[in-house]
Amino acid sequence: MDAISYRRAGCPINNTLETFGDRWSLIILRDSMFGGRRRTFRSYLTESIEGIASNILADRLKRLTANGLLTRCADPGHKQRVVYSLTEKAIELVPLMAVMGSWGLRHTRPAADLATGAQVLEDGGPQLWSEFMDELRHIHLGAPQPEVSAFAKMQVAYEATMAAEAAASA
Amino acid sequence: MDAISYRRAGCPINNTLETFGDRWSLIILRDSMFGGRRRTFRSYLTESIEGIASNILADRLKRLTANGLLTRCADPGHKQRVVYSLTEKAIELVPLMAVMGSWGLRHTRPAADLATGAQVLEDGGPQLWSEFMDELRHIHLGAPQPEVSAFAKMQVAYEATMAAEAAASA
Repeated sequence: MDAISYRRAGCPINNTLETFGDRWSLIILRDSMFGGRRRTFRSYLTESIEGIASNILADRLKRLTANGLLTRCADPGHKQRVVYSLTEKAIELVPLMAVMGSWGLRHTRPAADLATGAQVLEDGGPQLWSEFMDELRHIHLGAPQPEVSAFAKMQVAYEATMAAEAAASA
Repeated sequence: MDAISYRRAGCPINNTLETFGDRWSLIILRDSMFGGRRRTFRSYLTESIEGIASNILADRLKRLTANGLLTRCADPGHKQRVVYSLTEKAIELVPLMAVMGSWGLRHTRPAADLATGAQVLEDGGPQLWSEFMDELRHIHLGAPQPEVSAFAKMQVAYEATMAAEAAASA
């Protein structure tokens, strides 16, 4: 990537993809957002469905931290372990993730359970995205716990959709 | 990019970035969307503010065509010249472009005139995006011309915003 010409050009759409990154950066941010907790190096490595390699993971974590999308700090429970938190800048990527998910639903062939997750986000719209961002601010930035849990809402909607699909195909 | 693991994983968010592509693919699609007309190889090469190299342009045009985001056909005016058109699948990336622009406005330092363009898209919201998609369907897919021109609307809003900014800084 050519940081100089990007700065010279200064298109906000282009700037976003430059900061946001490539496919692996997206996967890391997605796992931090939808995993419901802060993550360790090991949890990205072992729990990501795409199977990221450890050298790529290390590189992308460094870049995401340098770009102000993740912060790293010691895990209060295990002093020798580091956990990664989303920044406010990263949390504000929720609408972009939702819109990417909606397009992927329509124009690619996602796996059924993952498609259901994207469908729940699409159906909930900006109201749900906003509640989800508030909950991420609680988990990652220590903001007060919101009264409504977007994670719980999404889980209920997810289970209802999966049950309806199972009934329809039975 | 690893097409096999991506297909195995099947996350709709990940699928979108895989199909949508990298920074240069984004720039090509952006120029096709916001340029108000179908484009030739030469027009991408000479009019893009980021200055794409011709070998990269050729590669990305090939990939975008293979992924069903662009089609190529002979220019009715110049039989030996090829023009590229957006597909329906690409036109439906308008909300993604708008959301990327909004995030870029807030979290990067875009050039003033390009920031104004993104601001107009943000202010217009889903209603304007939908009119914009209809106008792109007219230009690129031969659909009937919509009664409202989103391009004209965006131009008026753009000029008003630029004039207001000039007055404020005078």
